Amino acid sequence: MFALKKLYDQPGLWWTDDAPIPAVGPRDVLVAVTHAGICGTDRHIYEWDAWSRNRVHLGTTTGHEFVGRVVQVGEAVTRTRVGQRVSAEGHVGCGRCRACRTGNGHICEQVEILGIDRDGCFAQYVAVPEDNIWPIDARIPDHVAAVFDPLGNAMHTVMAAGVSGKSVLITGVGIIGLMAVTVARAAGAARIFACDVDRRRLEIARCLGADETYHAADEDWPDRVRHATHQRGADVLLEMSGHPRAIQQGFSSLAGGGVAALLGLPSDRVVLDLANDIIFKGATVLGINGRRMFETWYQVEDFVLSGRLDLAPIITHQLELHEFQKGFQLMQSGEAIKVVLAIPQESLSSCPTPASTTAAVSCSLL
Amino acid sequence: MFALKKLYDQPGLWWTDDAPIPAVGPRDVLVAVTHAGICGTDRHIYEWDAWSRNRVHLGTTTGHEFVGRVVQVGEAVTRTRVGQRVSAEGHVGCGRCRACRTGNGHICEQVEILGIDRDGCFAQYVAVPEDNIWPIDARIPDHVAAVFDPLGNAMHTVMAAGVSGKSVLITGVGIIGLMAVTVARAAGAARIFACDVDRRRLEIARCLGADETYHAADEDWPDRVRHATHQRGADVLLEMSGHPRAIQQGFSSLAGGGVAALLGLPSDRVVLDLANDIIFKGATVLGINGRRMFETWYQVEDFVLSGRLDLAPIITHQLELHEFQKGFQLMQSGEAIKVVLAIPQESLSSCPTPASTTAAVSCSLL
Amino acid sequence: MFALKKLYDQPGLWWTDDAPIPAVGPRDVLVAVTHAGICGTDRHIYEWDAWSRNRVHLGTTTGHEFVGRVVQVGEAVTRTRVGQRVSAEGHVGCGRCRACRTGNGHICEQVEILGIDRDGCFAQYVAVPEDNIWPIDARIPDHVAAVFDPLGNAMHTVMAAGVSGKSVLITGVGIIGLMAVTVARAAGAARIFACDVDRRRLEIARCLGADETYHAADEDWPDRVRHATHQRGADVLLEMSGHPRAIQQGFSSLAGGGVAALLGLPSDRVVLDLANDIIFKGATVLGINGRRMFETWYQVEDFVLSGRLDLAPIITHQLELHEFQKGFQLMQSGEAIKVVLAIPQESLSSCPTPASTTAAVSCSLL
Amino acid sequence: MFALKKLYDQPGLWWTDDAPIPAVGPRDVLVAVTHAGICGTDRHIYEWDAWSRNRVHLGTTTGHEFVGRVVQVGEAVTRTRVGQRVSAEGHVGCGRCRACRTGNGHICEQVEILGIDRDGCFAQYVAVPEDNIWPIDARIPDHVAAVFDPLGNAMHTVMAAGVSGKSVLITGVGIIGLMAVTVARAAGAARIFACDVDRRRLEIARCLGADETYHAADEDWPDRVRHATHQRGADVLLEMSGHPRAIQQGFSSLAGGGVAALLGLPSDRVVLDLANDIIFKGATVLGINGRRMFETWYQVEDFVLSGRLDLAPIITHQLELHEFQKGFQLMQSGEAIKVVLAIPQESLSSCPTPASTTAAVSCSLL
Repeated sequence: MFALKKLYDQPGLWWTDDAPIPAVGPRDVLVAVTHAGICGTDRHIYEWDAWSRNRVHLGTTTGHEFVGRVVQVGEAVTRTRVGQRVSAEGHVGCGRCRACRTGNGHICEQVEILGIDRDGCFAQYVAVPEDNIWPIDARIPDHVAAVFDPLGNAMHTVMAAGVSGKSVLITGVGIIGLMAVTVARAAGAARIFACDVDRRRLEIARCLGADETYHAADEDWPDRVRHATHQRGADVLLEMSGHPRAIQQGFSSLAGGGVAALLGLPSDRVVLDLANDIIFKGATVLGINGRRMFETWYQVEDFVLSGRLDLAPIITHQLELHEFQKGFQLMQSGEAIKVVLAIPQESLSSCPTPASTTAAVSCSLL
Repeated sequence: MFALKKLYDQPGLWWTDDAPIPAVGPRDVLVAVTHAGICGTDRHIYEWDAWSRNRVHLGTTTGHEFVGRVVQVGEAVTRTRVGQRVSAEGHVGCGRCRACRTGNGHICEQVEILGIDRDGCFAQYVAVPEDNIWPIDARIPDHVAAVFDPLGNAMHTVMAAGVSGKSVLITGVGIIGLMAVTVARAAGAARIFACDVDRRRLEIARCLGADETYHAADEDWPDRVRHATHQRGADVLLEMSGHPRAIQQGFSSLAGGGVAALLGLPSDRVVLDLANDIIFKGATVLGINGRRMFETWYQVEDFVLSGRLDLAPIITHQLELHEFQKGFQLMQSGEAIKVVLAIPQESLSSCPTPASTTAAVSCSLL
Repeated sequence: MFALKKLYDQPGLWWTDDAPIPAVGPRDVLVAVTHAGICGTDRHIYEWDAWSRNRVHLGTTTGHEFVGRVVQVGEAVTRTRVGQRVSAEGHVGCGRCRACRTGNGHICEQVEILGIDRDGCFAQYVAVPEDNIWPIDARIPDHVAAVFDPLGNAMHTVMAAGVSGKSVLITGVGIIGLMAVTVARAAGAARIFACDVDRRRLEIARCLGADETYHAADEDWPDRVRHATHQRGADVLLEMSGHPRAIQQGFSSLAGGGVAALLGLPSDRVVLDLANDIIFKGATVLGINGRRMFETWYQVEDFVLSGRLDLAPIITHQLELHEFQKGFQLMQSGEAIKVVLAIPQESLSSCPTPASTTAAVSCSLL
Repeated sequence: MFALKKLYDQPGLWWTDDAPIPAVGPRDVLVAVTHAGICGTDRHIYEWDAWSRNRVHLGTTTGHEFVGRVVQVGEAVTRTRVGQRVSAEGHVGCGRCRACRTGNGHICEQVEILGIDRDGCFAQYVAVPEDNIWPIDARIPDHVAAVFDPLGNAMHTVMAAGVSGKSVLITGVGIIGLMAVTVARAAGAARIFACDVDRRRLEIARCLGADETYHAADEDWPDRVRHATHQRGADVLLEMSGHPRAIQQGFSSLAGGGVAALLGLPSDRVVLDLANDIIFKGATVLGINGRRMFETWYQVEDFVLSGRLDLAPIITHQLELHEFQKGFQLMQSGEAIKVVLAIPQESLSSCPTPASTTAAVSCSLL
C-alpha cells in the first residue's frame, strides 16, 4: 500500500508505494483511510525538531487524525463490522494500568500514539485496536469526522475547565485554540477573550465568537482582560500556546478562584510565580492531555450534531494526500489553519490482502 | 405609605394607604420600590390556598421580586449608599446556622422570606438587611432587574444540574421553566426538550430555543424524548412543574447516569419508582431551593449583561401597582406569563419619615 | 464439572455433577473457582421470590462473588495468564453503549450479571470476559478476595457520597451495610449512626465503629440522630435496606445540604415527601448500582491492603461448597452474616477439557 | 492595655503596657484574649525578614491565632454575646467583592489579616468584626481552640485535595504539615508519606500516623514514593514547605491523574516542568490560602470533637505571654513545634474602658 513515512534523519516525509499493509491482530480493526487531518505534531515530525528526533523512529508512518471505512476485523472483534465509517482514538493505552482501567487511558504511562509510536493514518490503511474505534454518525461530513481528534483536545480542555456562564481567556489560537473558541461559545461561555501573535488568527477567533482579542505584542493585554472583567480577571484560562510568556501572562490575568486548563506544551521548563498566580488566588490548574475515552468523543459528536459549532473558518484547506508537501507549506506560511487530506476513492477499488496475523479474515468494500 | 396587604382570611389582596414605613435596624436598608414582579407564590397568597393559609399571617405585605432606590441605611451599614439602585435576595437567613455561615443561606432552616414571613415589596418602601442587598448594574433595565429573583431560581437550577453539551428536558414551562429554557440555551445545552399542559407556553419555549416540545396530554412523550436521544433519555431533567405525573414521566425519560434537578414543589407526597428511576440508573437528584447567595446573583448578572438571554417573550405585561388585580387576573387566565408592576415616580417625590429604630438617619431621593 | 444450579421452579438450588464446562470465547478467561461468597441476591434466587422468578432462567448456575485461578484463556486474551489468582466484576456490559464506553459499565442498560443472567461461580469453573477480570494481590487472603464484589458495593456507596469528616447515617446493616460501617470508618467519617431491625447486627455495627445504633422499632430514632447532630441531621445517608419506612425516616434525618446515597432496592414504589425531604433541604440523592469499573476495585484493594478495614465480624462462616444448604439456612436464621464457600483443592487436581470455542487452549494448574 | 508590637525596624517584638484598647465599631466584637498561638508568620515578623518588612507597618500588634472571652459588642452585633468563648477568622474581607459574597472571603483581594495588616491578638484585647467570630464549643480545651486557625489551614488543604482512600505525600512537616498528617489520617487517607529536612519532625509525623518518612537530604526519596505505590506515585501531594526543590520533587512523585494542593509559599518564583509534571499527567493543582469561611471551621470543630485528631505531639509548649521571647527562641531552635501563649486570668480582673466609637457599650467578665 502507499504511505507517508519518516524515512530519513532530516526534515520531510516520504511517499512510499510499497509499504506493507499493517498486521491485524485478533482485537484489531483495519481501516481504509479516506480523509486525514494534518496536526501540529505532524508538522513537528515533518520539520524534524528536537522533540520528534528523540521520540519518532525512522520508518514510522505519520498521521493520527482520520476517518475511513473498516475493511477487515480481527476474529475477536465483536462490536465493529466491515464497511463501517469510523475514526479512532490515537492514544493506544496498555489496557492494564490504573489509568486505562478507570477510563483515563489518555494518561496511561505506556501510551503509544498513532503516527508517533506506531504506524499512523497518512496511508492507504491503518490498523487500530477495536477498543479505540469510534463509529462516525452518518450525518457528519468526512472533513469534520477527520478532525474529531483535535476537536476532542479542544473539547476536553473546555469541558474540564467548565465555561458555562464564565469569562474565558484563550492564550494561543492555533488550530486547537480556534476550535476552543467555537466550542466554548457553544458550551455557554459568557465572554471569550483570545490572545495570539498572529492577527489573522485573531480575526478568525472574533468571527468564531471571541468578544475581545489581543495581540501578544501588546504587553498590556492582561490589563485589558482585567478592565473587561471589573478588575477580577478571567474566570477561566485555556492555555493553548505552550509559550512561557503567554502562560505567565495568562496566569496573571486569571481571577481569584479561577480555573486554568493547560494544554499547550512548553518546550522547556517554565518559571512561575506560584504564590501570587496560584496560591493566593486559590486557583485550580488542570493538566490536559489527549481526550477522555470516550466521554470527550460523545461530547464532540453531540456538539457537532447540535449544529452549534462553526468549523468552516478553521478547516481552511482540503487537498489530496499526494499534495501533502503543499499542505505542510500552507501551514508553515500561516495561510492554512487546518488542512484535511483526502485519499481518492479509487485507492479503495480492490480488496487488500493484508499480512494478517490471523486466519479468519473478513474483507469487503462499500 | 401605600402597600398591598393580605388583610382578610379570604382570596384577594388589599390596597392600603396608611401602612407604616418599615423600621430600619442598624444593619438594614430601606428601599423605595420602583418595579416589582408578581410571582406564582404571590398568586397562591392572592388565591389564599391551603399552603398560604397555613404560612402567611394576616396583615403581611406581599411581594418579593423588586428593584428600587435606597432611601435610608442603618448606621452599621457600610457597603450600601443612599441612592443606589438595588434588588435584594428575599431569603433572610438566621446568619448563625451552618447553612448561613457556609454560603448556603438559601437552605437555612429558620429562613424568613420577604412577602411571606415578613413585609414584602408590593409597597412604597421595603426594608431588607444590607447583607441581602444586590446592587443593580446601570446597564440593566428596571423590568429585568425586577425579576432577578425568579431568574435566579432558573439559573440556580440550570447551573446546579450542569447543561453544557447536554440534552435537557424541562418539565413545566411556567415563568421559571421558560426562564430555564433561555438560560439553558445560553449556558450551552446541546438540545432542549420541554413539556407542559399549555400550548402557548410550549410555543414560547420553542421561540426561546427549545428543540422539541411535548403536550403533557400526549402520554407517549417520554418515548419521544428517548427517540430523540438514541434511546438513552435526556442527560438532564429540570423539574419545574411540581406535578406528580410530570415528575414520574420526567424520571422515566432520564438517561442512565443523568442528573435531575427538582425545583417544582409538589403539593403532596409523590410515589416514585426509586429502583428503576434512580438506583439502577445511577442517577443524581438535586433538590433546588431559592438561589445561592450570591453566586447565583453574579451568574444572573453575567448572563443578562452577555446579551445571551431572551426575556422579552417571558415578561409579557408591565402594569402599574394599583392595577394589581388585573395583573393577577392576566396570570390566572394564562394570558400573562410574567407581570411586572411599576410604581410611578411621583410616589418618590418626598422624603419619608420612617419609624426608625436608630437615631442617625440618612435620607435622600435621586 | 459440578455446579449449583436453579433447576426447578421452586425454592432451592441443586447440585449437579455433570454440568458442561463453560465455553471460552477468544476474549474470555476460564477460572477454577476456589472460594465464593453467598450474596443476598443468591438467597433471593434460592428462596425463589417474585423478583428471581421474573429474572432468572431455569438451568442457570448461581453465584457471582468469587476468587479462583485462571486455567484457560481465549486466544485474544493479552493481559491475563493461566495460573493468576483472580476475581471478576460480575456486571458484563455490552461494551458499546455510552455507559460502557465511559467507564460506567455498571449502569449499562444491557448488562448481564453473573449468576443471574449467565452462568455464575457456584461451580468448578466460571467463564468471564477478560475485561472483567480483577487480579488479586498476593497479600490478600482468599476469603477476603471472595467478597470484593459486595465490598465494592459498600465502597462505591461510601465513596460516591463522600464521608470524610461527615456524620453518616446507615439505614440497614445487613452484609453490605456492615461493610459500609467499616469502610466509612476507614474513609474518615467523623461519626457513624446505624439503624436496623436486628439487634445482633447493630452490635456488630458498633464493634465495627458505629458511634450510635438505633433499633428500627424505636420510632423516634430520627430524633436521636438530630439530637446527636445539633438538630442538623446527618450529613450523609447511606440507604442499604430498601425498606420504605427506613428510606422515609432516613430522609427525614438528613441535614440540609446533605447527601443521600441509595443502594437498597425497594421491592415496590415508595412514597416520598419530595418538598420537605429533598427540595427545601437542597439535598443531593445518588442512585448507587454495582461498582465503578474499575475505580471501585482499586479502592477496595487499597483499603484492604491498608489494614484499615475490619471484615472478621462480617465474614462469619466459611463452609465447603457442598454445604451450601447449611450456608443458606445460616443466613436465613440470622446466625450468619457473610458465608464464604470453599471449593476443595482436590477438585483442581486434573486439567479440565472444556468445550472451548477456540482451538488454541492453554491449560495449567498451580 | 498590654500588647506585643512591632515597634522598631529591626528583629524583635516589644511589650508595651499602654497600648490603647482597640476601637469597637457597631459590627465589631472586643475579645479579651486568654490564649494565643505563635504562627510561622509571627516568627517572620519577629525576625523581620524581607516579606514582613514590605508588608507590616511599625506599630502593629502581632498575632492572629487565639481564643478568648467576648467583653464588648458593637450595637449592631446580633449573634454574639458578652461572655462567649470565641476564636476568630483572621482574614477580614472587604465584604463586597465576588469572593467575599460567595463564601470565598479567604481569597478577597483586599483582605486584611489580623496581626499583619491590623492589630492582632498578642494583647490583652483584640477587636474583630462579628462576621469573623467563631464560637468555641465548651468541650474544646483552650490550647486547642487557640490553634483553630493553623489547624484550619491544614484542614482546608486536606479537604480540598480529598484524601479518602488515597496515598498522600506531605512535603514539609512543620506546624501545619504535622497537623495535616493527623488530619489526613482522620480524614481517611490510605497511606501517608512525609518528607522534611528535620529528623525530629519526621519522627513526630510517624507518631501521628505517617506510614513512611523521608529525609530531604536523601535525593532518591521520590523513588521510594514510587516504590511504595506500584510505581504510580502518590495520589495526592500536600505541599507545605514552599521550598522549590520540595515542590519539584513533590510533583515528580505525583501519580497520573493526581491532585497537588499547594499551601507553602515560595519566597521566589519556581521553575516547573509543566509538560511532564502537570500536563502529561493530567494532574490537578489547587492553590490553598487561608480557610474557607466557615466550612473549614465546622470541619475543624467536627474533627476535634470526634476525638480522631492527635494534637498533643504538635502543641509542644505552653508559656505565658510575657515569655514570648522564649517562645520564639524555642521555635527557632527547632525544640518547639507549636507554642501557645497564655494570658493570666488576673489580667481580666477589671472591666476595660475602651475608646469605643459607639455609645452603647456592654461589658462584663466571666
